[in-house]
Amino acid sequence: MSEARVPRGRRPGAPDTKAAILTAARRRFAASGFARTSVRSIAADAGVDPALVHHYFGTKDELFLAALELPVDPRKVLLPAIAGGPEGAAERMLRAFLSVWDDPELQVRLVGVFRGILDSDGERLLREGFLPVVLGPVGEALGIDRPELRMPLVASQVVGLILLRYVIGMEPLASLSGDDVVAIYAPTVQRYLTGELP
Amino acid sequence: MSEARVPRGRRPGAPDTKAAILTAARRRFAASGFARTSVRSIAADAGVDPALVHHYFGTKDELFLAALELPVDPRKVLLPAIAGGPEGAAERMLRAFLSVWDDPELQVRLVGVFRGILDSDGERLLREGFLPVVLGPVGEALGIDRPELRMPLVASQVVGLILLRYVIGMEPLASLSGDDVVAIYAPTVQRYLTGELP
Repeated sequence: MSEARVPRGRRPGAPDTKAAILTAARRRFAASGFARTSVRSIAADAGVDPALVHHYFGTKDELFLAALELPVDPRKVLLPAIAGGPEGAAERMLRAFLSVWDDPELQVRLVGVFRGILDSDGERLLREGFLPVVLGPVGEALGIDRPELRMPLVASQVVGLILLRYVIGMEPLASLSGDDVVAIYAPTVQRYLTGELP
Repeated sequence: MSEARVPRGRRPGAPDTKAAILTAARRRFAASGFARTSVRSIAADAGVDPALVHHYFGTKDELFLAALELPVDPRKVLLPAIAGGPEGAAERMLRAFLSVWDDPELQVRLVGVFRGILDSDGERLLREGFLPVVLGPVGEALGIDRPELRMPLVASQVVGLILLRYVIGMEPLASLSGDDVVAIYAPTVQRYLTGELP
């Protein structure tokens, strides 16, 4: 998954400025939600020019993902799963998911991020940011109908799996092989992606 | 659901003793897990006779549920859903679940309990206590095969739904009607209860 890793470490020249921007971004996104936060307001909080924010972090989407401090970019991880279209997408998405979450080093860091998001400050990031930045684009790229309902349904199963398998470690979920996880959950996720809904 | 409510309020005569027992129980269950905690050890921590613990709270299962401070007893809520056997059990369980979680007063208190459990101290309660006290008996009463795998699978979907619909309030999940929730999730839960598994 190395090509999917978000570049880490400080770029030379401006570690304090970048850190200040990320701190301002985390505060703004958590307080105002993704949609109502502007790059301009984050730049103002950090005391820098908006152009510098774009220079360091790219778009608002990129800045949001950088502020979450994810060890991987979920959009890049899911790219190969999306490429094949809706048919069989659930199994490909679950295998991509497991390639990241079953990696011991990444798992430790992802559990940390997940716990942070569950703090009340971070909930807004999940509720209002993860949907437009990650779930929405993935659903649209897959070409499914009603992505605004289907992707949250997928999330409701995957988040429960994350919580019990990785965060809490409830057996036998914690010890299931990746193949068993795929066999059990792919039909559920596939139905949410392409099955009949009310 | 009134008959399913856990009796609340202090019984006359020994509010401090009961509170001390509950505090000791919460600490012991969180620190040592459900299986390795004895009523005797809780009684010793609270400085009372084990017989008094049984007198106030009944069995260790009852004491565990009292320590969680649930506003309802999940076993009683699920009783009518269990009575009909595995066929259609998922829809009956989801309707019982919604009758509690969609009740505004109960919802506020349940979200509080859920948040508390997600604190690291409380995770052990969920991982090691909820399974033997709630999920296990429900699975056995339903008469399904492999309840030790099937009930955690059900939990992995229901916990994700709780987190997104009630705790985080992600749309459109938060606003779905109860009927839509049942139509969407019953096939998933029913497959986990009675479908083919690897």
